[in-house]
Amino acid sequence: MSPTPLTGLYRPSLALLTDLYQLTMAYGYWRAGLHEREAVFHLYFRKAPFEGGYAVAAGLALAVDYLQNLRFEDEDISYLASLKGSQDARLFPDEFLAYLRDLKFTCDVDAVAEGTVVFGNEPLVRVQGPLLQAQLVETALLTVINFQTLVATKAARVRDAAGPEATVLEFGLRRAQGPDGGLGAARAAYLGGADGTSNVLAGRLYGIPVRGTHAHSWVQAFGDEKQAFAAYADAFPDDSTFLVDTYDTLDGVRHAIGVALDMRQHGHELGGIRLDSGDLAYLSKEARKLLDAAGLEKVRIVVSNDLEENLIASLRQQGARIDVWAVGTQLVTAYNQPALGGVYK
Amino acid sequence: MSPTPLTGLYRPSLALLTDLYQLTMAYGYWRAGLHEREAVFHLYFRKAPFEGGYAVAAGLALAVDYLQNLRFEDEDISYLASLKGSQDARLFPDEFLAYLRDLKFTCDVDAVAEGTVVFGNEPLVRVQGPLLQAQLVETALLTVINFQTLVATKAARVRDAAGPEATVLEFGLRRAQGPDGGLGAARAAYLGGADGTSNVLAGRLYGIPVRGTHAHSWVQAFGDEKQAFAAYADAFPDDSTFLVDTYDTLDGVRHAIGVALDMRQHGHELGGIRLDSGDLAYLSKEARKLLDAAGLEKVRIVVSNDLEENLIASLRQQGARIDVWAVGTQLVTAYNQPALGGVYK
Repeated sequence: MSPTPLTGLYRPSLALLTDLYQLTMAYGYWRAGLHEREAVFHLYFRKAPFEGGYAVAAGLALAVDYLQNLRFEDEDISYLASLKGSQDARLFPDEFLAYLRDLKFTCDVDAVAEGTVVFGNEPLVRVQGPLLQAQLVETALLTVINFQTLVATKAARVRDAAGPEATVLEFGLRRAQGPDGGLGAARAAYLGGADGTSNVLAGRLYGIPVRGTHAHSWVQAFGDEKQAFAAYADAFPDDSTFLVDTYDTLDGVRHAIGVALDMRQHGHELGGIRLDSGDLAYLSKEARKLLDAAGLEKVRIVVSNDLEENLIASLRQQGARIDVWAVGTQLVTAYNQPALGGVYK
Repeated sequence: MSPTPLTGLYRPSLALLTDLYQLTMAYGYWRAGLHEREAVFHLYFRKAPFEGGYAVAAGLALAVDYLQNLRFEDEDISYLASLKGSQDARLFPDEFLAYLRDLKFTCDVDAVAEGTVVFGNEPLVRVQGPLLQAQLVETALLTVINFQTLVATKAARVRDAAGPEATVLEFGLRRAQGPDGGLGAARAAYLGGADGTSNVLAGRLYGIPVRGTHAHSWVQAFGDEKQAFAAYADAFPDDSTFLVDTYDTLDGVRHAIGVALDMRQHGHELGGIRLDSGDLAYLSKEARKLLDAAGLEKVRIVVSNDLEENLIASLRQQGARIDVWAVGTQLVTAYNQPALGGVYK
């Protein structure tokens, strides 16, 4: 994975990516003369997410980049100088803002490597140094590590359910919690065990393999399903996966087979078909039979439609013939537990 | 709210913030000569989130900024040129990439204003224009509008539960889905009815009022609770809210009262106390009695601790005396339904 850092993603300085109380406490410590007192904080979670026994640590490279680039820019200082309290007096005096402007992060930081399996109450990060600095970074560290660890763990659970032979793809950008929710989820999912993402910007920024098929709207734009598949095969003669459920799924498989046999006559092979609705266990078995009967044993069956680890396990138990699992909303938002309660104490 | 746009937040161009299939379909349409065909898409959701009857439209200003700045930069084109298919051949030919490099977004876009109450199957955005362009923007529009609308709706529900007189604050950055998950949630929560945020960068970028108290670690750094409160009051004589539950909550209230009476002797007034654990209904009533008995009728009671609209409604039914509701994880991740299923068809 490419090391595109957090600070390479955002235009504004991230020094203000924090709760206000970190800055008011910083001023309080500075004013009370406690700012240089040695402190040690540990970042950990108490309970693994998803009622599971483990988590996959992630986000640490982003956290390190945040720490290494931590500085208050002029815009940050001007903004803090503009903040006023209840008596219309300034919240932070100039002397303290001058201190912040010159602040350099000097704490020692130890962390487990990204991708490490971690357990409840086990520190992922240890920050030791001046109290003001060690306290100041709490919120940003938690934001980055809570979310990346959450999604990496979810991806590991999805991978475990799908089995080692299957391909797992992250397809959730449109339902992610904002653009970075999508980018961060693609990164963490790849770390946790996904093979690729539909998110092209994540592919560019992080070097993750990108994958895709086509939408129902492609078929609808042509009206005739077979014509739509043929046009897609014309554009991608060796890299086509046809979405077959726009009208009747098994008719769609038959149309895909027809086009695949035409492609073969021109020296090309259909890559796969995708099922996005209905009884995926039944439909995948029937599709496999139809494909195999036509001599298309190597055409892969891709499924999507609100997949998550329990549904994947159930489909496998039902004997579903699925080669590629495209997992969206449930993975990128960690839908059944969308926050990890990491703490920093 | 300041109009800090989406493209002002991110360094990379957002043209690749999309599913790969939008680009493969774009190439397919271009190759088939269908790219200029007139198309109309509507963005809407079928069912309001949180088992509710409505949603609050949000994210549209960010979506418009994305559309107005939509262009493929050199890095985007180079990355697309580097993508290869199964036969190690390039996925996109140079002629198509030259077309993308020159592409300007020319569709007509209509949208409801941010903050509008919207219902199921009612279009939030309508895009009309060349098929290739109208299709290409699907994923980014959904990512931005799904999430912002989700959180704005949640905030409106929290505001509704808290009542018009109460103050509602968004305090969730540390549990948000990444930095932009936190920034976007602060923006959408403010649009939906929150009065402020703890997120200082959101304050700077969007002009949202920022608020905060102090952490348990502040009290622990001093050891003696009364000394910790006094030190905070020294730093913020007119803007202090003391977190009183580090050790024993009602003892904490008594310590806060002691410091508040000292403050009064110097011409200052305590702003509030914060409860972050325990039986918030009981504790807020007892704290109110103690404060009132000490002549501190104007000290406000702030509560936090995994609040959401149902808990807020229940606490109010129990007669809790709460002035300020600080809502975190449940609001910024829309915990009980962390994705909105908006579609674009």
